[in-house]
Amino acid sequence: MDLSNNTIERITKIYGYLDALEERGVDFVSSKELAEALGTTDHTIRKDISLLGMTGYTRKGYSVRFFKKELAKKLELNKKRKACIIGLGRLGTALLDYERAKEDGFEVVAGFDCSINKLERIRTHIEVFPMSELENIIKGRSVDLGIITVPAKSAQQVADQLIEAGIKGILNFSPAKIVVPKNIIYLDMDFTNALRFVAAKFITKQ
Amino acid sequence: MDLSNNTIERITKIYGYLDALEERGVDFVSSKELAEALGTTDHTIRKDISLLGMTGYTRKGYSVRFFKKELAKKLELNKKRKACIIGLGRLGTALLDYERAKEDGFEVVAGFDCSINKLERIRTHIEVFPMSELENIIKGRSVDLGIITVPAKSAQQVADQLIEAGIKGILNFSPAKIVVPKNIIYLDMDFTNALRFVAAKFITKQ
Repeated sequence: MDLSNNTIERITKIYGYLDALEERGVDFVSSKELAEALGTTDHTIRKDISLLGMTGYTRKGYSVRFFKKELAKKLELNKKRKACIIGLGRLGTALLDYERAKEDGFEVVAGFDCSINKLERIRTHIEVFPMSELENIIKGRSVDLGIITVPAKSAQQVADQLIEAGIKGILNFSPAKIVVPKNIIYLDMDFTNALRFVAAKFITKQ
Repeated sequence: MDLSNNTIERITKIYGYLDALEERGVDFVSSKELAEALGTTDHTIRKDISLLGMTGYTRKGYSVRFFKKELAKKLELNKKRKACIIGLGRLGTALLDYERAKEDGFEVVAGFDCSINKLERIRTHIEVFPMSELENIIKGRSVDLGIITVPAKSAQQVADQLIEAGIKGILNFSPAKIVVPKNIIYLDMDFTNALRFVAAKFITKQ
């Protein structure tokens, strides 16, 4: 399936919105309501949905439960994928034990750090390895996703190593901008955008 | 100024895009290019920009440098605001020392935790306090933003305490959904959406 990032971003948000509606016990939702929640047009929402080859629109709108289940299936959200974390500083070790990742389809199966000292002191139920084991572990365990939490200056080098080892996706929590080939899934997790969003919100509350 | 969340989200993304263009040495950008980068329409972008009361569109498009500077001024992105972090586990302590926050306009001035033991062991250049000091410090130092990194079960209670103490904005890194009054700036920083986005991207690369 070939979907643009913007379509996927919207569909992911739709999924989250359906999730919240289901929790509130809502049965049906219109594409108009979805459009308003996402700040886009009715037309865009219907186009995104049709790109997924989904049907099931009734006069009352989409069935929330059916729609959510279909989306999860189409997007393979329930498929378990393996992730590893590179850089076991504070953020890296915090993410090692991030329980929600598993619910969201990613099981962290390994952690890596270049400091043997750090590896020896770390307390976690996830297996940790020196960087020299990166390729072996990623290939041997078919790890799909690499989560980068190293300092900015090492981020690109780590990304290159991950790609060389056959990783399919990268989440970059370092503030560095990383360049990856087009076939690699890449997401920048730097908090800059969130902090800017909040800063900008302050002006609307004055 | 009264701007919707969706407008602010787009404008924040525009700012990030202008930042990248400036780094690449690009001088002008059209609203069409901005629309494509953000996956929205030309019309929406022009409406967002006009809501800010901005002008300066020439035949070549917007001047990247001028536009970025004007946006920073309108959104008060350069104004320094004070933040505090509540919950000094691994993620909380990682964020205590997140250097980029300062560049993005937020100075972390205090950390809080309910465990005196944890407070005594922590190594950071930021001042840390027991929870009983929360209100005093927030009021005394005019702290604007509270960053919640406590476990899910305590998140709502901490949010209530922050709001009681007069905080203006909350970033919630816990997986709990928090309810806040409308006048409080609120942003959910749970990684669930990002992980879903990445999971969905996998299907497009098969």
